[in-house]
Amino acid sequence: QIQEIATKAKEGILERLDAGEIVIGDGGFVFALEKRGYVKAGPWTPEATVEHPEAVRQLHREFLRAGSNVLQTFTFYASEDKLENRGNYVAEKISCQKVNEAACDIAREVASEGDALVAGGVSQTPSYLSCKDKAEVKAAFRKQLDVFMKKNVDFLIAEYFEHVEEAVWAVEVLKESGKPVAATMCIGPEGDMHGVPPGQCAVQLVKAGASIVGVNCHFDPDTSLATVKLMKEGLQAAKLKAHLMSQPLAFHTPDCGKQGFIDLPEFPFGLEPRIVTRWDIQKYARKAYDLGIRYIGGCCGFEPYHIRAIAEELAPERGFLPEASEKHGSWGDSLSMHTKPWVRARARKEYWENLKPASGRPYCPSMSKPDGWGVTKGARELMQQREATSEQQLKELFQKQKF
Amino acid sequence: QIQEIATKAKEGILERLDAGEIVIGDGGFVFALEKRGYVKAGPWTPEATVEHPEAVRQLHREFLRAGSNVLQTFTFYASEDKLENRGNYVAEKISCQKVNEAACDIAREVASEGDALVAGGVSQTPSYLSCKDKAEVKAAFRKQLDVFMKKNVDFLIAEYFEHVEEAVWAVEVLKESGKPVAATMCIGPEGDMHGVPPGQCAVQLVKAGASIVGVNCHFDPDTSLATVKLMKEGLQAAKLKAHLMSQPLAFHTPDCGKQGFIDLPEFPFGLEPRIVTRWDIQKYARKAYDLGIRYIGGCCGFEPYHIRAIAEELAPERGFLPEASEKHGSWGDSLSMHTKPWVRARARKEYWENLKPASGRPYCPSMSKPDGWGVTKGARELMQQREATSEQQLKELFQKQKF
Amino acid sequence: QIQEIATKAKEGILERLDAGEIVIGDGGFVFALEKRGYVKAGPWTPEATVEHPEAVRQLHREFLRAGSNVLQTFTFYASEDKLENRGNYVAEKISCQKVNEAACDIAREVASEGDALVAGGVSQTPSYLSCKDKAEVKAAFRKQLDVFMKKNVDFLIAEYFEHVEEAVWAVEVLKESGKPVAATMCIGPEGDMHGVPPGQCAVQLVKAGASIVGVNCHFDPDTSLATVKLMKEGLQAAKLKAHLMSQPLAFHTPDCGKQGFIDLPEFPFGLEPRIVTRWDIQKYARKAYDLGIRYIGGCCGFEPYHIRAIAEELAPERGFLPEASEKHGSWGDSLSMHTKPWVRARARKEYWENLKPASGRPYCPSMSKPDGWGVTKGARELMQQREATSEQQLKELFQKQKF
Amino acid sequence: QIQEIATKAKEGILERLDAGEIVIGDGGFVFALEKRGYVKAGPWTPEATVEHPEAVRQLHREFLRAGSNVLQTFTFYASEDKLENRGNYVAEKISCQKVNEAACDIAREVASEGDALVAGGVSQTPSYLSCKDKAEVKAAFRKQLDVFMKKNVDFLIAEYFEHVEEAVWAVEVLKESGKPVAATMCIGPEGDMHGVPPGQCAVQLVKAGASIVGVNCHFDPDTSLATVKLMKEGLQAAKLKAHLMSQPLAFHTPDCGKQGFIDLPEFPFGLEPRIVTRWDIQKYARKAYDLGIRYIGGCCGFEPYHIRAIAEELAPERGFLPEASEKHGSWGDSLSMHTKPWVRARARKEYWENLKPASGRPYCPSMSKPDGWGVTKGARELMQQREATSEQQLKELFQKQKF
Repeated sequence: QIQEIATKAKEGILERLDAGEIVIGDGGFVFALEKRGYVKAGPWTPEATVEHPEAVRQLHREFLRAGSNVLQTFTFYASEDKLENRGNYVAEKISCQKVNEAACDIAREVASEGDALVAGGVSQTPSYLSCKDKAEVKAAFRKQLDVFMKKNVDFLIAEYFEHVEEAVWAVEVLKESGKPVAATMCIGPEGDMHGVPPGQCAVQLVKAGASIVGVNCHFDPDTSLATVKLMKEGLQAAKLKAHLMSQPLAFHTPDCGKQGFIDLPEFPFGLEPRIVTRWDIQKYARKAYDLGIRYIGGCCGFEPYHIRAIAEELAPERGFLPEASEKHGSWGDSLSMHTKPWVRARARKEYWENLKPASGRPYCPSMSKPDGWGVTKGARELMQQREATSEQQLKELFQKQKF
Repeated sequence: QIQEIATKAKEGILERLDAGEIVIGDGGFVFALEKRGYVKAGPWTPEATVEHPEAVRQLHREFLRAGSNVLQTFTFYASEDKLENRGNYVAEKISCQKVNEAACDIAREVASEGDALVAGGVSQTPSYLSCKDKAEVKAAFRKQLDVFMKKNVDFLIAEYFEHVEEAVWAVEVLKESGKPVAATMCIGPEGDMHGVPPGQCAVQLVKAGASIVGVNCHFDPDTSLATVKLMKEGLQAAKLKAHLMSQPLAFHTPDCGKQGFIDLPEFPFGLEPRIVTRWDIQKYARKAYDLGIRYIGGCCGFEPYHIRAIAEELAPERGFLPEASEKHGSWGDSLSMHTKPWVRARARKEYWENLKPASGRPYCPSMSKPDGWGVTKGARELMQQREATSEQQLKELFQKQKF
Repeated sequence: QIQEIATKAKEGILERLDAGEIVIGDGGFVFALEKRGYVKAGPWTPEATVEHPEAVRQLHREFLRAGSNVLQTFTFYASEDKLENRGNYVAEKISCQKVNEAACDIAREVASEGDALVAGGVSQTPSYLSCKDKAEVKAAFRKQLDVFMKKNVDFLIAEYFEHVEEAVWAVEVLKESGKPVAATMCIGPEGDMHGVPPGQCAVQLVKAGASIVGVNCHFDPDTSLATVKLMKEGLQAAKLKAHLMSQPLAFHTPDCGKQGFIDLPEFPFGLEPRIVTRWDIQKYARKAYDLGIRYIGGCCGFEPYHIRAIAEELAPERGFLPEASEKHGSWGDSLSMHTKPWVRARARKEYWENLKPASGRPYCPSMSKPDGWGVTKGARELMQQREATSEQQLKELFQKQKF
Repeated sequence: QIQEIATKAKEGILERLDAGEIVIGDGGFVFALEKRGYVKAGPWTPEATVEHPEAVRQLHREFLRAGSNVLQTFTFYASEDKLENRGNYVAEKISCQKVNEAACDIAREVASEGDALVAGGVSQTPSYLSCKDKAEVKAAFRKQLDVFMKKNVDFLIAEYFEHVEEAVWAVEVLKESGKPVAATMCIGPEGDMHGVPPGQCAVQLVKAGASIVGVNCHFDPDTSLATVKLMKEGLQAAKLKAHLMSQPLAFHTPDCGKQGFIDLPEFPFGLEPRIVTRWDIQKYARKAYDLGIRYIGGCCGFEPYHIRAIAEELAPERGFLPEASEKHGSWGDSLSMHTKPWVRARARKEYWENLKPASGRPYCPSMSKPDGWGVTKGARELMQQREATSEQQLKELFQKQKF
């Protein structure tokens, strides 16, 4: 296995996908590092790459060990405009460039320890939401891209976009680099915030130059796969080809409105009962694979053991297990030596596959009603009016109309 | 604050507790490191101290940053007899001594970075469960103690005992060192596996030499506090004095039987929906404090952010916040700048205090019936017969009687 | 009020609806009488009209008292072919004619005690399901119609049809009478068992001669209203006019598949936790009214107090309360004299409107997965193939294909 | 069977119980008739015996048909002081005597149609709660007893007492008649409102002259059986003999505080999701039988089909089925001819025995926290102080102390 890994290393993302390989992504840095004490919920900015590189490095290592073939630079919300929004809770002033450079260095260091590529990532910007023009928004992306080029990442990802228009701008900028570009949106089956359906989003992204398209964040695995399916159908209808990618939440969110888990009352400090199990992830990995998705990873809530579950589920197809499986038995078989016979009885696939885990919370419900306009019909209709080209405008309309 | 921390450092555990200080423990290593890919569920042994010291070190750092005043050596289940049980999944043979020494070194390295003491820990042994005699069991503890003395830990903890008899033996061995000894049992209000009630357990432990007594693991915060309350009452009735300590699970387990969460059908791979929130922990910390407990920490399921929640809840009493609070707003106030008004509305204590978080799992129940004899009346009665002095004997009785 | 009632009585169903009046239907006889001991679940046949007329009469009276303006003859599943299916659990042989005649007599007797019309009802037949031809099926309806004409009911209802084709045949037969005809199908938003959408079903029924169309049974109030909405839109698109009617279940069934509550694992003997409250019904009545529905009643699970809740919710529009409201305070105000202050605090609308009632069943889930092909995608597609013209054929296909 | 019934009829209650027969009680009149439109929740008074005798008669008949061997006169809360409390919602003034006489006449009429005895019942009085003296309270009971004697009921029941002191007074009055007396209290395992444990309550009642003791109302079957078990143990310890009786709620109430379901937020208009199934009742009947209880019935929430479930579960012991079983198949076997194979698959005991029925309410929790002092520790302690001899005094204390 080690042999195999060595020879495969350093093949590019598209070579791998074109060859039919399964590429396993990594998990959600902001949520994992928030729980470890290095990221502030709310701003969700990645100054930890400078402040606490050892913590970021360790998390990368855990994902690598769990089977990730891609280490994304921890540059989520690391555009200059977003970093400025942080206010003054970051002790010393840390420049956008420094944050992005450190992110690249750490990811590269860990990637070189195994079979993983480094992907530089950009995400949606406050500039777009506050209606800055295309040039300004693109400039923000270009600033990050400059770092990625200097640090020579292996490929680029535009991720976490609620508006396809901005995502297209990001892809256009990233394509200037000549490197492969992946693009994911944080949307559900209802489409982007201006009402563009997933199929059309995918078409626009591929036309803009993305080689890989899909979704990340905001929705649970099932909902996300339903969205990617719509993307796939949109591409087929338009006779376009692209690789598919999914990086959903590791939270169950069947009750989400159009804008995803942010509108759930539990976001972001009460999501624990929604955390998916490793078995949920094995089901997700299988469904993703069956749907033709070959870049399979996760977003917020995904911990290393969730990524390992993808690698274990698809081990038959890939021919090998990740390193971290040394500390994990397939489908619970590490329990087969337990002293209690009823615990030993849990060392089998059927058990975990069919378990309906209890919440231990008899005073809590199963589902919540989302807050906000996620569910307000009037607001949704407003948002689908293309005249309202930004969330800001929508918000104003929203406020005027007293929803 | 930093000043204050510096001067306080290196005061011993009893000096702190005698002075009325609140001492914050750390969280659960085996569960956290299992999710990170370094510990195997089932055996739960700590060879990671040798195999992946960087991972253990990082977790210690996160707890320190979150506010822990004690770093326990990662020596859970590190007795020689237990380590031998691991079977052959650990590539190279790693000696008991090496595991324990590495654990001490790592804990000391991190503790010296802040205001924390190092505690060497021993836990229940397979030897006791398989009815080895007192001398043999004590020898196992002594082997670990030799390492702790060589490495000069600050104090000692005997934790995770289901039988007070074995816990007493452990305390007796640890007391030979002359260092302060804390002792916690993994029992609930029904008492130990031979039916000794919590109050009596506490009395026996204090008489054996423990200066601090309480519970750890197996039950959720509420159940654990109810058990410590019984211990406190037992000590009062016996006119004995000791400091109180609690390190419960970070899982809701109102449905546990006598033997705790191991008998729940979700153990150990489907416990996610039971994970407690940071707000649950703040309530726990407050209740523990009000009950007179001054050594407050956690066990399985406790992540760094749970420990931070203890430190934040008790910040008014302690006069300072932990370092990791730089990345956390009190009661959600880091959301006060969110772009969505309904998310901003979550930036207040009343919101999170009263939220009943949904599970996102409408096909799952709230509670489970425990497996095993945890709930079998006949078996319980058997276990309360003192003739059956070991779990093994009980199991035989159990099997004979076909419960 | 009594004055007003007296003068209104005996106006026909269409006169009332054309004048914009709200007509309140009655509730579910088979379920209510099953619980009272007079109907056998499974066959669900109405021989009680002959065997125990006093029980049927009493239930009619309770609905009248609760506000029903229509008393449906208890002739559900009273076609000759269905009655023969009962097997031999009915002691003496009771003829189809006798059952239907008795039903008419009882309904008329009670209707004459208040402001209610008598509606003769027919429902789907085994003959259709076993692929008998149109003539044979129509003959079955005609046999019941003969009784209705002899007994001079006020109008006719074709209800509980899963296939619009058979419903159209029923309407055609009933129209021969010259009396007004209402037609309801037991379908959800996905349409009939051959895949005809609700809008098209409504159009076909109106074209066949129905003056009132809608849904009954199989789905909860919310789902049923969504279906009627689709019917309304279908009629509008086709520029057809008809009155709208809804008689849903009094069970919460958000988890139903296409074929409704019969496929839920709880049907029919474990539906208790799904029973809707009176407050749920008030919300239903308001939503139905707002949607333009003016014939508002219920089906299985509706007890007299549910019908009263419709009448109370729409009392402002109607100008009067039903007789049974003498024994009921609006929105719980009969609790305002309770000795316990916390019970008195429940005597207000906000309380009951917002209460999320607990199930008292912590080991039970919120939702179930339906059995059968209700959820089998392959089977659904099969059913939508129009070649399969009957459930029997579908079942054969189904069995062949081993879903 | 009919033969057998005929010969058995008119044997007295004690002859039956002394002979080891199982006596089946009836169900809850106030709740059933509230849903039918004849009783007002809040006052819960039985003027329906005069206003709508046909409705009361029909409910008696349904219980008789379902297997009841005792028809209790519908005289719940029919003491003069309670009837006066009704306020003016009862159109014409109906005297206490008339209500009680009509109740006796109706019960006797129906009882004579089958094998049932008539029991005259008294329940707790407002006079006691407002601290009237023993003579006054006894006078109220005597007034009802006069009617029962005039109408020659077969035996007497003192039921629904929260304070054993008042229950003893009631038994003393009823014993004056020379007829057999049964006494049930609406308490749980924590005992009466003054803190008298169930075992002591039973002893006091038997010493006062009750031949049958037990519990009714306020708690679910499981809790009620736990209470009767304590009564049984109390009697055994005191070497007293009496027959045991249980008439619990047909609602699941695991979350009740000491005062039972009245303190649950769902009481009385949102209890639907708590309604027990017929299968829950079969389990209850079996457990009651195994505990040695021979008078087995129900209280609020019990509908005729629940009583039938008792009779069906105990048919092997009794040797016959009730009349209403003609319309019911044992353990769902009436589904064995259903057209859908997956519904046919439900026609067996294992299916219904193991079903965990879903609530269909994903936004609702499983359990509620009771309102009021039911759960307030301070208030409970107050109540256990015997100085506070009445609920009124307690309430005053309660208010003073601002619980």
